[in-house]
Amino acid sequence: MAGSASRLKDIAKQTGFSVNTVSLALRNSPRIPDETRRQIAEAAAKLNYLPNQVAKSLVMKETRSIGLILTDLTNPVLTAMAQAVELELTKRGYTTLFATSNNKLDLERSLIETFRARRVDGMLIFPCQHGELEHIRNLRARNFPVVLLVGDADAGVDAVCMDERAGAHKAVAHLLDNGHQRIALLDSASDKGNYEKREGYTSAMAAAGLNVDPTLIITPDGSDVASGYLAMETLLQNDTGATALLAATDSLALGALRYCIKSGIKVPDDMAIFGFDNIEFAEHAVISLSSVDYDIESISKMAIERVISLINSKGLLPPPRITQVEPDLMIRESTL
Amino acid sequence: MAGSASRLKDIAKQTGFSVNTVSLALRNSPRIPDETRRQIAEAAAKLNYLPNQVAKSLVMKETRSIGLILTDLTNPVLTAMAQAVELELTKRGYTTLFATSNNKLDLERSLIETFRARRVDGMLIFPCQHGELEHIRNLRARNFPVVLLVGDADAGVDAVCMDERAGAHKAVAHLLDNGHQRIALLDSASDKGNYEKREGYTSAMAAAGLNVDPTLIITPDGSDVASGYLAMETLLQNDTGATALLAATDSLALGALRYCIKSGIKVPDDMAIFGFDNIEFAEHAVISLSSVDYDIESISKMAIERVISLINSKGLLPPPRITQVEPDLMIRESTL
Repeated sequence: MAGSASRLKDIAKQTGFSVNTVSLALRNSPRIPDETRRQIAEAAAKLNYLPNQVAKSLVMKETRSIGLILTDLTNPVLTAMAQAVELELTKRGYTTLFATSNNKLDLERSLIETFRARRVDGMLIFPCQHGELEHIRNLRARNFPVVLLVGDADAGVDAVCMDERAGAHKAVAHLLDNGHQRIALLDSASDKGNYEKREGYTSAMAAAGLNVDPTLIITPDGSDVASGYLAMETLLQNDTGATALLAATDSLALGALRYCIKSGIKVPDDMAIFGFDNIEFAEHAVISLSSVDYDIESISKMAIERVISLINSKGLLPPPRITQVEPDLMIRESTL
Repeated sequence: MAGSASRLKDIAKQTGFSVNTVSLALRNSPRIPDETRRQIAEAAAKLNYLPNQVAKSLVMKETRSIGLILTDLTNPVLTAMAQAVELELTKRGYTTLFATSNNKLDLERSLIETFRARRVDGMLIFPCQHGELEHIRNLRARNFPVVLLVGDADAGVDAVCMDERAGAHKAVAHLLDNGHQRIALLDSASDKGNYEKREGYTSAMAAAGLNVDPTLIITPDGSDVASGYLAMETLLQNDTGATALLAATDSLALGALRYCIKSGIKVPDDMAIFGFDNIEFAEHAVISLSSVDYDIESISKMAIERVISLINSKGLLPPPRITQVEPDLMIRESTL
């Protein structure tokens, strides 16, 4: 009680109003003019006055919550990212609400509106179609703080993400360095118009003077282990002479690996396999999996700092900035 | 437009009011008496009239959204369950909002209040401490629809879940049948007072006339692969003569398996390993992993039906019902 009283005094001192006025204003009394109430609420918020949420939301209409939209809950790298985001936001006093679009654009649109209606202060979004961002640009145009977790230089919305193109390029360059020329790509993302990894693959092949043979490019139905298993079967039926492959997710790579082992194809001797995302299970596979690796914690932290800075800009959003982090390669048995 | 007009006619036919009255009522006109508006809104909702949400929430104050609280986003079985819940709820026209307590009771409590404030219609909860449910019972006492996804006969709250005790009992009975007597348990849950798996382990040992040797019970720091690796090291240092183990999660089992392989311990010959949850990666491990298996889709569906029936009971909640589904065993190389 003593603490709380002294706080009212602090606010009074700071604003020049009496303790009585401060107290009335914080209880939202109609006897206090709006502008006075606003000044006092602002000072109270700055001084971390206990009924802080109430005071703050008077001024800023903040709910101290962030919405995070994922594309797929069963992709371990997305849930690892969600976990990192949640831990970091909790540290900063924010609640995290998640939702998943299941890679459906309609659902993504409606989830954005749901989060708006539930009055989150900002959103972090894995967009399901990287070329379909109009609804997210509209959100930003309405001065709503939003940061993409996958994004391109021309996104028109803030983005903090791993550079998928660079990751795919590096992995393919590594396979080329190991003497492979017939390198396949297993990637379901092009289905959605998400061509980043394929472009990285193509640019690495081009840099080695190789054209891309379309029969080497397999588009699995999904990005899970079962899809990778079937994609490997398809690749072998195509009779392409592939000696190595890059999979767009570790789960796809693990499925391909499983198919090879079942069919007596030696990894890496007959088929080198490179995964993407370096999930925990990659290291623990039958044959430990080489994978494109990046620091999820640091990307999450930067994305959170970005969205909070947008929230604090209070509607005067600065021009969008795109931050792309270059991933590294984790080389293991599957490409040795 | 024609479609929408014919729908208005359907509502008019159903309720006996004119199309004009229906149209005014649905636009919430003050010219229409409340009771008429309520009847029309209800009919419109039943007929799935397009501005359904608006109409329905006029009558029922529903937001058509469910909050799901997980304990851990990096546990694949929890995210698989979340995915199944989301897909099923989407089919039924509900939005799913997720949050994670990160196994912290305080956070679980505050997330429940957050979801209440965001006006979800009901909640599905993986409680982090199965013996600490007072705040959830209070929620139910306030007539709020809530269903636990882990629960015991005396939970005092509806629950639809897998029977962890039965699962652990079955797995240990299988190991005993295979001739093992020194069977270890790797389980971090007892830290939180969640003793179900340990009780299943103990009951199976007791049924075989064996006492439980406390040195065989290891409590890892977490339930991930890295924790399993360290737990296996601890178990071997204890010099217990264990020839088999049950791990409370597949991730723990995969970590234990990894330690064995690194240390030249043959699985299953020197150490049989049984996991829990049958995640996708269990099948794809170095040595494919035996695991306690259950049908996530059917459990999710039953839990959703339960929470929706509670929502539809409109505050007249029936006494809580506990539904426990008995899991099966998936036997693979690690215990052959």
